[in-house]
Amino acid sequence: MHVLVLGAAGMVGRKLVERLAGAPGLLGREIARLTLADAFEPTLPRVFESAGKTLTIDLAAPGSAEMLIAERPDLIIHLAAIVSGEAEADFDKGYAVNLDGSRALFEAIRREGLREAYCPRLLFASSIAVFGAPFPERIGGEFFTTPLTSYGTQKAITELLLADYTRRGIFDGVGIRLPTICIRPGMPNKAASGFFSNILREPLSGKEAVLPVSETVRHWFASPRSAVGFFLHAATMDTSLIGPRRNLTMPGLSALVGEEIEALRRVAGDKAVALIRREADPVIERIVAGWPTNFDASRAEQLGFSAEKTFDEIIRIHIEDELGGSIQ
Amino acid sequence: MHVLVLGAAGMVGRKLVERLAGAPGLLGREIARLTLADAFEPTLPRVFESAGKTLTIDLAAPGSAEMLIAERPDLIIHLAAIVSGEAEADFDKGYAVNLDGSRALFEAIRREGLREAYCPRLLFASSIAVFGAPFPERIGGEFFTTPLTSYGTQKAITELLLADYTRRGIFDGVGIRLPTICIRPGMPNKAASGFFSNILREPLSGKEAVLPVSETVRHWFASPRSAVGFFLHAATMDTSLIGPRRNLTMPGLSALVGEEIEALRRVAGDKAVALIRREADPVIERIVAGWPTNFDASRAEQLGFSAEKTFDEIIRIHIEDELGGSIQ
Repeated sequence: MHVLVLGAAGMVGRKLVERLAGAPGLLGREIARLTLADAFEPTLPRVFESAGKTLTIDLAAPGSAEMLIAERPDLIIHLAAIVSGEAEADFDKGYAVNLDGSRALFEAIRREGLREAYCPRLLFASSIAVFGAPFPERIGGEFFTTPLTSYGTQKAITELLLADYTRRGIFDGVGIRLPTICIRPGMPNKAASGFFSNILREPLSGKEAVLPVSETVRHWFASPRSAVGFFLHAATMDTSLIGPRRNLTMPGLSALVGEEIEALRRVAGDKAVALIRREADPVIERIVAGWPTNFDASRAEQLGFSAEKTFDEIIRIHIEDELGGSIQ
Repeated sequence: MHVLVLGAAGMVGRKLVERLAGAPGLLGREIARLTLADAFEPTLPRVFESAGKTLTIDLAAPGSAEMLIAERPDLIIHLAAIVSGEAEADFDKGYAVNLDGSRALFEAIRREGLREAYCPRLLFASSIAVFGAPFPERIGGEFFTTPLTSYGTQKAITELLLADYTRRGIFDGVGIRLPTICIRPGMPNKAASGFFSNILREPLSGKEAVLPVSETVRHWFASPRSAVGFFLHAATMDTSLIGPRRNLTMPGLSALVGEEIEALRRVAGDKAVALIRREADPVIERIVAGWPTNFDASRAEQLGFSAEKTFDEIIRIHIEDELGGSIQ
C-alpha cells in the first residue's frame, strides 16, 4: 500500500506519521511506500527510511498535484492548508492553497483515472469553521454551512467537491470535520483559540498562562490523539456505509472553560490552576462568542468515530503523549 | 445606472429584459446603459436601442469576465449556466462555466475594485438543486446543501463564494434559489422536469401531453413572472436586512401533480384535461422521487419576496403572458 500524506509537517500530520511508524500494521495492510509532502520539510521516521520519501512542495504550484498523483498512491490524507488567520489576511493565498490546491489534487486524480483505472481513498481535513453563527445550542447533523471566514468558505467548497468527485467514482472521499484540537503541543501561539490549550499545557509544565475569556465560555474539543484516530478509522472503514453525504462532523467534547480548569485541578492540583492568570481580552471574547459550542455527531459515532468524554481524559493524553507520562 | 445581464438569452433572462423594457423605471433609477451577454446572441428590446448592447461571449473564456466588468456595471444579474443534464454529462464544461465562469466574474469585480473603489450589486440565479435527498417533508431554512448532481454542486459552491465576497465588501451579492419554473414557455423538452409544464402548456394550446409520473408526486413551483419578480426585488431591496447569509430559498408553491390537473380543469375544462396522456416512465419516476417537495421560505418572504399561492394563478399568468390573455 502506498500512502501519501499532504501537510505532513503540520501538527496532526506529524502525529499521524509517528503513529504509523509505531504500529505499521495500523492501516490493515503493510505500508510499502510512504510519501510525506508539505510546504515545510517533513520528517520521515527511521522505520520508513527505505520505503518513504519526503517532498517539500507548494500544492498550489502548477504540476505539484500531478507529480504526487503520478505515483498512484492508494491512500491520500490531505491535511495541507493555509490556516484561518492567514487565509483571512491573504485572500489570494488562502484561495490558492485551500481551494485551488485541493481542486488541483482532485483533478490530478481524475486525469490519472482517465488514463488508467484509479480510485484511491482520499481523506480531507475539514473544520467546524464551515459553520457560521448564529447557531442553535447544539448543531444538528443537517445544519447548513454558512461560514464567516474565507478559510471556512474554502473548506466548505472543498467538502462539496469531495462529495461530487466521490459520487462520480473519481475517488473514495471522506471529509473529516475536526473539532478544536486540545491540548495543542508546542509553544503558545497567537491564534484566537490558543488559550483553550495554553491554560492547560503551560500550567502542566509549571508555567503561567493567560485566560482572556470567562469560565462560562463553551466550546467543542478533541485531543490530538483523537484527531489522528479519526483519520486512521476513515482510512480503514467500510465507506459504503457512509452514503453520498461524505463530510462528517467528528465527535468531540462540549465543555466550559471552567470544566477545563476543574479537570486541571483534579489532575495537577491547585498549584497548577494558580498559574492561570485572568486577563479579559474583549477582542478575543467577541471572536469566541461567534464560535460553535456543541454538535450532534451521532452520524460519525454510528460510523465508528470516537473522541474523549471528559477533559480529565484530554489532559491525561497530553501527559502521556507529550510529557513522558508524568508531571513535575 | 448600468445594468449587465449575463445569460440574457435564456428563458428568465429574456423575460427579465422584456419586463425592464416595458417599465424602465422598475429598478428605481433610469437604466442609462444595458448590456446583455450570453453564449447565444441575446435580443435587445427596441426601447434600449441607443442605451444598450449585446455581447455573444463564453463566460469561461479567458478575458470575458474582465471585459464585462471593465465597464463597471452597477447591477449584475448573473443567470448564465450550463443546465443540469449537460453539466452532468460533460464534467469539464459544467465546472468550467458554472464554477470557473462565476468565479472569474467575481474575481474580475475584485480586481476592478482594487484598481478603483467599486462594489456593484450582484444577483446570482441559484437552484433548489443545491439540496440532495433524503429530505424532510418540508425543507427548513437552515437545511444543509448536499447536492446529488455536479450542477447542484457548482451552484452550492458559487453560493459560498458569493457569501464570502459579499462579506469582504467586494460586491453586494444575493443568491436567488429558484423553484422549478412552471409553466415554462416554448416547446416540450427532454428535461426530466419538463412534464410539470408540458401537461399544462400543451393542453392549453389544444395539444396532447404525456404525464410520466403519478398524480401524487409533489414538487415546488413558481411562475416565470415570479422568477423575474425575485430578481427585480433583489435589485432594489435594502440588502443590509439580509445579513451574512446571502443565499435565499425563494418562495414557491408546493403542489401535487393532481392539483396541477385540477387547476387546469377549473381554468380550461375537462376537454383540456383529456389531452393529458398517462404513460408511466420508471426512469423519470425514480429521478423525480429524489427531488424536494416543499420548503420553508419564510426568510425570503419576510424580506419581501413572493410567489403564487395556487396553480390557478400560475396557469392564468401563462395565459396572460404567453397566450395573449385567452385560450381557444
